[in-house]
Amino acid sequence: MHCDPIGTVSTPFETTGEAPPQGFQGDAEGVVRVREEFAAGLSGFDAPSVVIVWWADRADRSVLTLDRDPSRGVFTSRSPARPNPVCLTECTVLAVDDRRLRVRGVDMADGSPVVDLKASVRDRLDRS
Amino acid sequence: MHCDPIGTVSTPFETTGEAPPQGFQGDAEGVVRVREEFAAGLSGFDAPSVVIVWWADRADRSVLTLDRDPSRGVFTSRSPARPNPVCLTECTVLAVDDRRLRVRGVDMADGSPVVDLKASVRDRLDRS
Repeated sequence: MHCDPIGTVSTPFETTGEAPPQGFQGDAEGVVRVREEFAAGLSGFDAPSVVIVWWADRADRSVLTLDRDPSRGVFTSRSPARPNPVCLTECTVLAVDDRRLRVRGVDMADGSPVVDLKASVRDRLDRS
Repeated sequence: MHCDPIGTVSTPFETTGEAPPQGFQGDAEGVVRVREEFAAGLSGFDAPSVVIVWWADRADRSVLTLDRDPSRGVFTSRSPARPNPVCLTECTVLAVDDRRLRVRGVDMADGSPVVDLKASVRDRLDRS
């Protein structure tokens, strides 16, 4: 299964170790920049929040158990270190401007590739 | 960015079109089977829910806007049709048995590849 990034995300964190364990535990702001060929995917975006699916490109993919508790596997956690380092961060949307999404609540390392953007389940239920 | 599936998920649905739009809107049960080489990743799993990150391998990856409303892009939705068809379903865990996780609230097509399993944010906050 192969993914090409649809964009990247800028954050204040050089590594995920500097970020809060979950983005909403802090109030750091970031910017998602969608690549030009995927810009139409952002048309009509007006939701108050967004799920950012990103790729922890510096994560150790060989790890199967947690450093802090080797009796627990990585699938019991949300740590970026895991066989397929696809990470999920639900952020508050501050502004949408063409191909840029300014968001609050980021926890990615700066420059991380973005795999996908999704409506949050909560917002979808409000709409439907 | 390349992923190898960590397992597959069995569900009652031949296609995603037969499933509820979001799994928790129904009560369909499914089984995640983790591949042997990733079994350690499930060690100590005892949470009441799990986020299943799966790959919609039959989705149309060329779609950028919604069929039902072409003024809206796929990134405003949770439809499986999108450039990188990584989908998220939070399920209730019914049983954990070695490398198998029996869950309620599935919405995947039967046999879909599983990319990752994660603790839900809600459960993590309860623990920490």
